[in-house]
Amino acid sequence: MNWNRNRTDFRMGSISETGEFAFINRIQALFPTSADVLHGPGDDCAVVRVGDRIQLVSTDASVEGVHFRRNWTTHYDIGWKAVAAALSDIAAMGGQPQFVLTSIAIPTSESIDDLESLYKGVADAASACEAVVIGGDTTQSPSGLMIDVTVIGEALNNGFILRKGAQSGDMLVIIGTPGRSRAGLLALQNNIDSPEVIRAHNHPTPRITEGLWLSEHPHVRAMIDVSDGIAQDAGHIAKASGIGVGMTSASVAIDPELLTLCMELDESIPDLVFTGGEDYELAFAVDPDHSLELIENFRRTFNLPSYAIGAFSDKIDGVTIDGNPVEHRGYDHFRPST
Amino acid sequence: MNWNRNRTDFRMGSISETGEFAFINRIQALFPTSADVLHGPGDDCAVVRVGDRIQLVSTDASVEGVHFRRNWTTHYDIGWKAVAAALSDIAAMGGQPQFVLTSIAIPTSESIDDLESLYKGVADAASACEAVVIGGDTTQSPSGLMIDVTVIGEALNNGFILRKGAQSGDMLVIIGTPGRSRAGLLALQNNIDSPEVIRAHNHPTPRITEGLWLSEHPHVRAMIDVSDGIAQDAGHIAKASGIGVGMTSASVAIDPELLTLCMELDESIPDLVFTGGEDYELAFAVDPDHSLELIENFRRTFNLPSYAIGAFSDKIDGVTIDGNPVEHRGYDHFRPST
Repeated sequence: MNWNRNRTDFRMGSISETGEFAFINRIQALFPTSADVLHGPGDDCAVVRVGDRIQLVSTDASVEGVHFRRNWTTHYDIGWKAVAAALSDIAAMGGQPQFVLTSIAIPTSESIDDLESLYKGVADAASACEAVVIGGDTTQSPSGLMIDVTVIGEALNNGFILRKGAQSGDMLVIIGTPGRSRAGLLALQNNIDSPEVIRAHNHPTPRITEGLWLSEHPHVRAMIDVSDGIAQDAGHIAKASGIGVGMTSASVAIDPELLTLCMELDESIPDLVFTGGEDYELAFAVDPDHSLELIENFRRTFNLPSYAIGAFSDKIDGVTIDGNPVEHRGYDHFRPST
Repeated sequence: MNWNRNRTDFRMGSISETGEFAFINRIQALFPTSADVLHGPGDDCAVVRVGDRIQLVSTDASVEGVHFRRNWTTHYDIGWKAVAAALSDIAAMGGQPQFVLTSIAIPTSESIDDLESLYKGVADAASACEAVVIGGDTTQSPSGLMIDVTVIGEALNNGFILRKGAQSGDMLVIIGTPGRSRAGLLALQNNIDSPEVIRAHNHPTPRITEGLWLSEHPHVRAMIDVSDGIAQDAGHIAKASGIGVGMTSASVAIDPELLTLCMELDESIPDLVFTGGEDYELAFAVDPDHSLELIENFRRTFNLPSYAIGAFSDKIDGVTIDGNPVEHRGYDHFRPST
């Protein structure tokens, strides 16, 4: 689990008995806060005041065999994706990344060239988002690679968007092409040569510029990055906002990249979009009177898909798809499949 | 290795062939910097400008079987020590800790009660230094526990002390009771009931208040925390300052806690002080004209030992003890002994 993201990381013996959220509540109760902490654990980033600035901070671990498998990706992309996933938390708040630190545990057998490739991926992912790597730790790992990335960003003009704030009637809008990352994983698992979606899985790009643009839009009321599938991530917005959210399969845009692959694999595109993980696209709640205008502006500005996939409602309890309640569907980080 | 601390963490096949420092140089060359980064990798913390404030940031990993063994410590102390070790990097720059994030990889067999104890140790170590835990990530570990801690602090009045800055003739002064942590480790390894030194090993206290006090002293020119033994850590100050450092065994204060234990184990106190690790005391370079006055003030203020153990000199190449050159002696994080 990520306290700043509530990913469903736990499917394990003793912890799963207590339940992930009960455990988070138990440990969060241990932590006092301070006046400089505007938002502690519970959102994509912590939000803290530093002098006259507002800073966004998050940490995100990638573990071999849990989050990635080295036979399906390059060392360069292992480094890139670990940093991109962490930076996506800054995008989810509409912030500008500034600094990155990486702590890497390395098996003794790792080659210098592979490690250098990994660090090149780290450096390039940071640079792509105009952040710089300011430090890190590298230590021995008794088993596989593990990369922990801490990102620090700034809320420009002190503006940032939380998960909470969605109102009943708000549209749920997504940007980009969610579902591709899970499709890429399926392609890798089934040995299908589908470079576009495999790249989406191994080399995701955080939506920093798009997040900044959305954070300046007065009618965007809540936002999250799509790391666990929209069903789960939209549910996080709904829960934080104290309402529910309903989505419809018919709203899902047909991504031509996914179409052939889904037919070949007998998968449904809506399923990939609703429950696929690690897309690092953005999903947000917007005032319904301004959603069409925003979507059009967004498409024109970024030449990227964007569409409404549902609506928030105080008449809905939790998350529904086509009217049916959804129980925490989404990417399961405990399935060692990537 | 810790880029912000240059700990000798690598004794492994392929990396040790290239050499730790050569590898650090190779990867650091990959990372561009920015105007907001006052000091990047190479000191105890990175130093960055955030608006009108100066921030100190560091990350520090603790790996089971490499940095700790669970049969020699409690879960509470595993959490405490991981955070204390990271916060010590803020102390080493004379900063005030503010925020802590912890990323913890957990084996599936871990019990909820043990985990809660670990997080209690995390929370208490942060609180003891007036810092708050603002976020984290918890994920599955395929092998042992791993805790990565990121600490963020502030340079009060924008003052901080680097490793570089020592001048030829400066005294090398240490505070506290270094050597106790290694003594505690030896006690654990040899099944000797010596609670004071075992506590020094399992439950170290970062010298935050002392570091802040020293950072306000105009004649303290360079500082480091003693994490790898004074021989190595004083060597880091010397190297960063472009000079050498000479120490003498006769200067080492006889710590009564160590005396009996050293006799029982046939160990020498100076050896423990020079090469023991994880003390998290502070060592610094001070203008020789003000060193006695500073030491007296320090002792009076904190009721803690403090004494000169050597001097910096442009006539010395590297590190000497009693006139003999020292090759990187110090705590070896690749010896799975703690």
